[in-house]
Amino acid sequence: MHAITIPEPGGPEALVWSEVPDPVPGEGEVLVEVAASAVNRADIMQRQGFYDPPPGASPYPGLECSGRVAALGPGASGWSVGDEVCALLGGGGYAEKVAVPAGQLLPLPDGIDVERAAALPEVVCTVWSNVFMVAHLRPGETLLVHGGSSGIGTMAIQLAKAVGAKVAVTAGTEEKLERCAELGADILINYREQDFVAEVNEATGGAGADVILDNMGAKYLDRNIQALAVNGRLAIIGMQGGRKGELDIGRLLAKRAAVSATSLRARPSAEKAAIVAAVREHVWPLLAGGHVRPVVDRELPMSDATAAHRVVEESGHIGKVLLVTS
Amino acid sequence: MHAITIPEPGGPEALVWSEVPDPVPGEGEVLVEVAASAVNRADIMQRQGFYDPPPGASPYPGLECSGRVAALGPGASGWSVGDEVCALLGGGGYAEKVAVPAGQLLPLPDGIDVERAAALPEVVCTVWSNVFMVAHLRPGETLLVHGGSSGIGTMAIQLAKAVGAKVAVTAGTEEKLERCAELGADILINYREQDFVAEVNEATGGAGADVILDNMGAKYLDRNIQALAVNGRLAIIGMQGGRKGELDIGRLLAKRAAVSATSLRARPSAEKAAIVAAVREHVWPLLAGGHVRPVVDRELPMSDATAAHRVVEESGHIGKVLLVTS
Repeated sequence: MHAITIPEPGGPEALVWSEVPDPVPGEGEVLVEVAASAVNRADIMQRQGFYDPPPGASPYPGLECSGRVAALGPGASGWSVGDEVCALLGGGGYAEKVAVPAGQLLPLPDGIDVERAAALPEVVCTVWSNVFMVAHLRPGETLLVHGGSSGIGTMAIQLAKAVGAKVAVTAGTEEKLERCAELGADILINYREQDFVAEVNEATGGAGADVILDNMGAKYLDRNIQALAVNGRLAIIGMQGGRKGELDIGRLLAKRAAVSATSLRARPSAEKAAIVAAVREHVWPLLAGGHVRPVVDRELPMSDATAAHRVVEESGHIGKVLLVTS
Repeated sequence: MHAITIPEPGGPEALVWSEVPDPVPGEGEVLVEVAASAVNRADIMQRQGFYDPPPGASPYPGLECSGRVAALGPGASGWSVGDEVCALLGGGGYAEKVAVPAGQLLPLPDGIDVERAAALPEVVCTVWSNVFMVAHLRPGETLLVHGGSSGIGTMAIQLAKAVGAKVAVTAGTEEKLERCAELGADILINYREQDFVAEVNEATGGAGADVILDNMGAKYLDRNIQALAVNGRLAIIGMQGGRKGELDIGRLLAKRAAVSATSLRARPSAEKAAIVAAVREHVWPLLAGGHVRPVVDRELPMSDATAAHRVVEESGHIGKVLLVTS
């Protein structure tokens, strides 16, 4: 088969569409013939040499895919050859085939075609596990999403609105904020021109955000805690603004607030399967009902992953950038 | 009545046993004739002028008491004059009488006399709300308690053991560690001579502590996160080691861990009542069954609160220091 390999870490041109051996599904794994994958920030870090795949994972990038079941490994159950699926991966999505533990597969939601389904696993599992399973966003509460027009952001807006929460977003252009508003965002903050702490406080009558979904890490740590409501929960899923920041414990304590940080990729397969099962129960019906939809910026050929990485690094996109095999 | 007043903030001698007006129970409040109160670190900070009572609270120190119901305010229900009770207070426990919202009262647990019951409300509510309601300690997990011989520590050890957890403690003397062991602590760490990160890691086969109950704040922040297990939860309830510390978000994210910080005193009465109700449901049966008991270092006359504060500030005590009115 072909896969995107990284002979030497570097810029987008480091991604090379190469002939490689087919993966062989192991115990409890399913072999998927890939229709599409999607670009995540982690793929860029892996390409740059900063994020090695976890032990046992495929060496190729790609944390999610969609496609058709091509074979079942020993002991794999619940799926049949030919099933259309999407999957949360530890790696290897940028390839024509990938082997994945059966518990990380999801059926296609009704009404979503197989390529677009590749836009779902990583964002849905990230948002559901952080905003709902860890931070327990409840109806009537306010969620602040940084990077509202990203793949994660566009899904977080829709899922929070679907459960009856109020949503504030930050983004860097008016066009991006408009798209967030179309998806249901109530409070639109241009971070280049406005102070998100002041805007969130004003829009909530001084109460602040009950939950914040953050991809900036250190750079926003103190301001995020300033923007939190009493009993607020800050869920950090990225460190685009740095790794180490000063934590004002007194401020956290006065608000009886909490800070969590997670990633999906490093979780053992059993934890991924538990998240996938929760997503199938709670989010799949919303997708099938049309209340929530994948937001896709564009589809590019997987063999030109270089172009797709350039798009994501320039940050002009809205939603997910897909890589299709055909 | 008499109460401990603080005419000028300062050392232990700033506490003055004075004649003051009786409190009048407001809407939904109960007037308690106080048998005993107990010393908490927050009382020392209040005495020093660093911790003003929250709006509406009594100006006198004292976050818990025991005694008998002397009168019911308008609309107060669930209690009768003469009932023996203990109570979580927003302040005012260092007095012969105190008015308290009815939802913050608890009956005396079977087998606990009225004075010793004053040792319970603050520590039981603090431990239950943080270790169980926020950090969700589960059977088979490991809890690390800093200051294992404190009032909080002695209660945390017992409650964690009662639910089937493993308990590690830090303390500064061998005598204190021995008392922790008598209460059930499994892993004993003398923080003056040992590195708690290394000790916890060694005692858990490298896994770390699933939950840490911390009173040190900034000083221990980074080492606490080092000592956490994957999916670990750090619950901060004090800042004896400072307020601002560097948070290594990368370390937190790699462990999928969370940091929370809370205090009881600032919570609105409804939140206090919810914690008190949970404590009555989950902890009161353990006290009545003799599985968990209050640990009292000594009882001193409330009129000599100065002496009691000196004992607590010298940190030689084990468990709670009570102030009795008669």
